[in-house]
Amino acid sequence: MNPILPVILSGGAGTRLWPLSRPEQPKQFHRLVDAHTLLQATALRVADAELFSPPLIIANERHAAAVEAQLAEADTTFASLILEPMGRNTAPAIALAALAARPDDLLLVLPSDHVIRDVPAFHAAVRTAAALANEGWLVTFGIRPDRPETGYGYIKRGAALRPDAFAAERFVEKPDLETAEAYLADGGYDWNGGIFMMRAGRYLEELAAQAPDVLEPARSAMAKAARAGNRIVPNAEAFAAARSQSIDYAVMEGAERVAVVPVAMGWSDVGSWDALLDLAERDENDVARHGDVLAIDSARCLVRSDGPAVVTVGVSDLIVVATEDAVLILPRGQSQRVREAVEALAARDSGQ
Amino acid sequence: MNPILPVILSGGAGTRLWPLSRPEQPKQFHRLVDAHTLLQATALRVADAELFSPPLIIANERHAAAVEAQLAEADTTFASLILEPMGRNTAPAIALAALAARPDDLLLVLPSDHVIRDVPAFHAAVRTAAALANEGWLVTFGIRPDRPETGYGYIKRGAALRPDAFAAERFVEKPDLETAEAYLADGGYDWNGGIFMMRAGRYLEELAAQAPDVLEPARSAMAKAARAGNRIVPNAEAFAAARSQSIDYAVMEGAERVAVVPVAMGWSDVGSWDALLDLAERDENDVARHGDVLAIDSARCLVRSDGPAVVTVGVSDLIVVATEDAVLILPRGQSQRVREAVEALAARDSGQ
Repeated sequence: MNPILPVILSGGAGTRLWPLSRPEQPKQFHRLVDAHTLLQATALRVADAELFSPPLIIANERHAAAVEAQLAEADTTFASLILEPMGRNTAPAIALAALAARPDDLLLVLPSDHVIRDVPAFHAAVRTAAALANEGWLVTFGIRPDRPETGYGYIKRGAALRPDAFAAERFVEKPDLETAEAYLADGGYDWNGGIFMMRAGRYLEELAAQAPDVLEPARSAMAKAARAGNRIVPNAEAFAAARSQSIDYAVMEGAERVAVVPVAMGWSDVGSWDALLDLAERDENDVARHGDVLAIDSARCLVRSDGPAVVTVGVSDLIVVATEDAVLILPRGQSQRVREAVEALAARDSGQ
Repeated sequence: MNPILPVILSGGAGTRLWPLSRPEQPKQFHRLVDAHTLLQATALRVADAELFSPPLIIANERHAAAVEAQLAEADTTFASLILEPMGRNTAPAIALAALAARPDDLLLVLPSDHVIRDVPAFHAAVRTAAALANEGWLVTFGIRPDRPETGYGYIKRGAALRPDAFAAERFVEKPDLETAEAYLADGGYDWNGGIFMMRAGRYLEELAAQAPDVLEPARSAMAKAARAGNRIVPNAEAFAAARSQSIDYAVMEGAERVAVVPVAMGWSDVGSWDALLDLAERDENDVARHGDVLAIDSARCLVRSDGPAVVTVGVSDLIVVATEDAVLILPRGQSQRVREAVEALAARDSGQ
């Protein structure tokens, strides 16, 4: 078996957890469910030297110091930190990693901002995926759905390759609710959680065939990369030319020999404050508290502060998130409306 | 007619408007209903040189700079700023003013943290009160009740002295709800809003007769006062000996020739966040906003920030108050529960 090389993608900068998540401090840098940040937890999850090589971390250049500080704090090591001069989505990011690896390394692509509660289940799936990747499969991890989620893509299982793995029959886009309910009832569909495994060389071959406009700029950027210690900074001008595309579109949907390894491992992408409330430890009144918070006679709330003291009295079914410079308040079950808050603030601040 | 000398009492430091109101920044120093702080609005309300002399301000010593800065900002003048070394309630505070005044000055005692919307009505009542005070009456301003409030004392009207003034038959303590409803139905009771008028000499005579343990320490403190510019700092050791008592208990309840001038002047003591929501300007969704606030699809709320940006989405009937270091969230109609928040924080911070 070839070595398993984790590739931790820390490029995301979403706004779904505003006001905590910001361009300078995206979701993966925050302590959301326990004492570790999501990035730290991701690194610790692959810190088992019997199973994994030290990981590659792919992050935006401006986050270099933050990534290094977080990994040092968690006492984890890494092989290299590849610093993207700009974001170009996952296909180019993984290309940088594949080019930094040896061709036979088994890349285990991991988003840095997901929660995985059942690490033994995750490791078991990794072993299954590694066996398939070693044979040349492009492996996706299929998250077992527990609800008709319309926010994720799905993967339809095809023929069984082993008792715990299947050929991927097709990738499907985010469905409408009716379709999602049908997928859930069918039982043969899994969520595409953005976790992948393949030989580095195999990934580069697929790019050469399907997406040379991703591969060649990445190759040129790595050939001209600046290196200092274990930091690698791909050449900005070269990398800027890469087509911005996800691995799903650029490679997986059009490739042959794609497998899916279904796994139930307590996964969440913590895609909203409601999702965090579901995940978080709660007190006897079903209140999830974090930071300098007092929840008096309050029920079924998420109350979180990374700044001011927050006191709630007599409220229920509320989400309250405070930082040094912003406070968000909305009803439980409506946290997708964070988008409205972010857009309204942006419109206001641009003088509209 | 003797000159009318406003005496503005800026000694209060309540917690009912926590987290905005703090010991260092009590209610009167804040912009609650318009562009002026309550202290500034109080000073501006008596800035009419035809009716009033420049006022005396009585404040805690530690607030000296804040008071001076606020009055300068509002471009108002004052005769003297009397700085109490410690709080001893209203009877001693007004004694200091009476001792600083000439005996025939008509003291108009005004809390610094009330709202009076109808200034012409206020001035008309002042003229009525001045005529009575000039004749030796101790005059109270009776606030016309519009609800069976249990949080204030009441004054029962006796015989009419003029069409717009009555002898005060008696002062009654804060009633229970049933009693308050009876007072409201009766129509012969007014709220005691803490606004008074009397000759300075008359007040000192009453103290000599009823409360020498207020008068003598105040007299000694003023005799040994430090003076610098228009600051007067009564001697601390002497003033500390004064009995801490309100003017109501120390003088009004036991005096002869007490009058009440009923007045409807848009008065509020802004005694809670709910009271402020009632007073404040509201948008088309019945939301009162102040500071860096966005209220998206929100209704019947008070949303106020003197610190972080606050964004509400899809909430209703909520009170949200944010400062640099604290955020309070509670349902509309329950703002008396601020007390629970303050007590819980105090208990926590003292390690209980």
